[in-house]
Amino acid sequence: MEMRLPQREPADDLPPRITVYEVGPRDGLQNEASIVAPTVKAELIRRLAGAGLGTIETTSFVNPSWVPQLADAAEVLEILGDEGRGPRRPVLVPNERGLDRALEAGVGAIAVFGSATETFAQRNLGRSVAESMAMFRPVVERALAAGLWVRAYVSMCFGDPWEGDVPVTQVVDACRSLMDLGCHELSLGDTIGVATSGHVVRLLDALESAGIGVDRIGVHFHDTYGQALANTLAALRRGVTVVDAAAGGLGGCPYAKSATGNLATEDLVWAMDGAGVETGVDLGALVETSVWLAGELGRPSPSRVVRALTGG
Amino acid sequence: MEMRLPQREPADDLPPRITVYEVGPRDGLQNEASIVAPTVKAELIRRLAGAGLGTIETTSFVNPSWVPQLADAAEVLEILGDEGRGPRRPVLVPNERGLDRALEAGVGAIAVFGSATETFAQRNLGRSVAESMAMFRPVVERALAAGLWVRAYVSMCFGDPWEGDVPVTQVVDACRSLMDLGCHELSLGDTIGVATSGHVVRLLDALESAGIGVDRIGVHFHDTYGQALANTLAALRRGVTVVDAAAGGLGGCPYAKSATGNLATEDLVWAMDGAGVETGVDLGALVETSVWLAGELGRPSPSRVVRALTGG
Repeated sequence: MEMRLPQREPADDLPPRITVYEVGPRDGLQNEASIVAPTVKAELIRRLAGAGLGTIETTSFVNPSWVPQLADAAEVLEILGDEGRGPRRPVLVPNERGLDRALEAGVGAIAVFGSATETFAQRNLGRSVAESMAMFRPVVERALAAGLWVRAYVSMCFGDPWEGDVPVTQVVDACRSLMDLGCHELSLGDTIGVATSGHVVRLLDALESAGIGVDRIGVHFHDTYGQALANTLAALRRGVTVVDAAAGGLGGCPYAKSATGNLATEDLVWAMDGAGVETGVDLGALVETSVWLAGELGRPSPSRVVRALTGG
Repeated sequence: MEMRLPQREPADDLPPRITVYEVGPRDGLQNEASIVAPTVKAELIRRLAGAGLGTIETTSFVNPSWVPQLADAAEVLEILGDEGRGPRRPVLVPNERGLDRALEAGVGAIAVFGSATETFAQRNLGRSVAESMAMFRPVVERALAAGLWVRAYVSMCFGDPWEGDVPVTQVVDACRSLMDLGCHELSLGDTIGVATSGHVVRLLDALESAGIGVDRIGVHFHDTYGQALANTLAALRRGVTVVDAAAGGLGGCPYAKSATGNLATEDLVWAMDGAGVETGVDLGALVETSVWLAGELGRPSPSRVVRALTGG
């Protein structure tokens, strides 16, 4: 069977174009058990950019003892030179020390990683939600003063492995605090993949009532329960235009039982191509990139599109 | 992590309840390479019924030399007794010979398997679309005369591996012919998994214009490109209330490159539970069934929900 794309047709309930926020090099690779060489990481980012992904989160300036996989953050950016910098090459920074290292590396954009729940804040950040907001305040202030673009992740927006259901009002409060710090964009994270489409719409409605419109929001779904694409389409129908995805479906949350990762960028792009929604991404070049990376990682891509188009 | 279901909330753009048409024992198992014993098949059907699946396609009275896996159709029904019969236990019949065997076995419902494209009709049925309609005519007439419920599958509704794009008008014509034979229900098959949600809505609109309303239509998606659940939700939003799915994501089309199978019943039920849409299915019992079957088949279930809830 030839590689065939579905008919391209305009969809009247979806936006005409979206921004894919590629998280594979950071959120994807940070969950890989074996260390990937910085040259491979830099090559991945170059190939993703070549496939048309405009926004790529390149790495994280987290404490190397927490995430050894990303201990080479400065080295990856050094290899990339100008290709790894600018407002569309954000890096994750957990705290002021991380920001110092990021500024030293000359980045043009950062992301901070907040939590909607107390338990995950304690486990992931070692402090309460309020304390983490206090920790982020100088990070965001200094980043804005340096002219950087700032994103804030909000994890556990739809459920928490320890707390179970997470009330929408609690998520809205966390989002409001992060926006009040001055962040440009929020990314609503379904860290353990339990969201369903009605829940997504309900949260977006509540955020709008709290003064946070869809123009400031990205969505970040994991495919643990097979719902990532359906949830993304629900968010797009509600006006969201920024979608986090990881090439080849890399990644996963180390706290969730299943190894299932992020929404695969290929599966998202296939859906958008079919709906006539512009992404700027060349699906063939992206699939080639994921096949190459799967070879480097020594295991097949979990993306359904990658597997279907390459006979995997 | 405990097994946690998402919050149950009513969704205003989805129907309050749907019928899951379980195709695992037939469409799923017919793609299994190694022969499954009739006792295991009967046990699967019993367990699926016990998990709340009301409608289960039990087997196919196809020529055993075409599909050796289903050569035991009569034996499976014999083992099941009354549990395997009635209007909600359809069997596939390809032709009058198959109908004879099905009637002999005392079934209460049948399904015929048509094609929207000439190439697939030739390859799968050995005749043109028009010739296959002529072959189905006496099958459907005799089945209706015997008081049976009759479903018609329409395969390759969204794309064909040889012909590529399939015009919507051509699909509507095939559907119209099958409804004119007197079939009670159509199942729109995305046999190779290439559909996207806008295309689904476009076909449903065209069918309605041709006098075939959503109350006569089921949808049948394969997850080859990761779109099955998103496409299903698009159809439900458009008013469809019958959804084909296979427990554990069994199955796949032998003509498509990838081994990816049907929409997993578990992934569908998870989405419906989250949206407050009634299915009558007990997700825990269904997952147990798929885990049991995976043990019998000697390989893990491809359902994301099964894997997530069982730590696979």
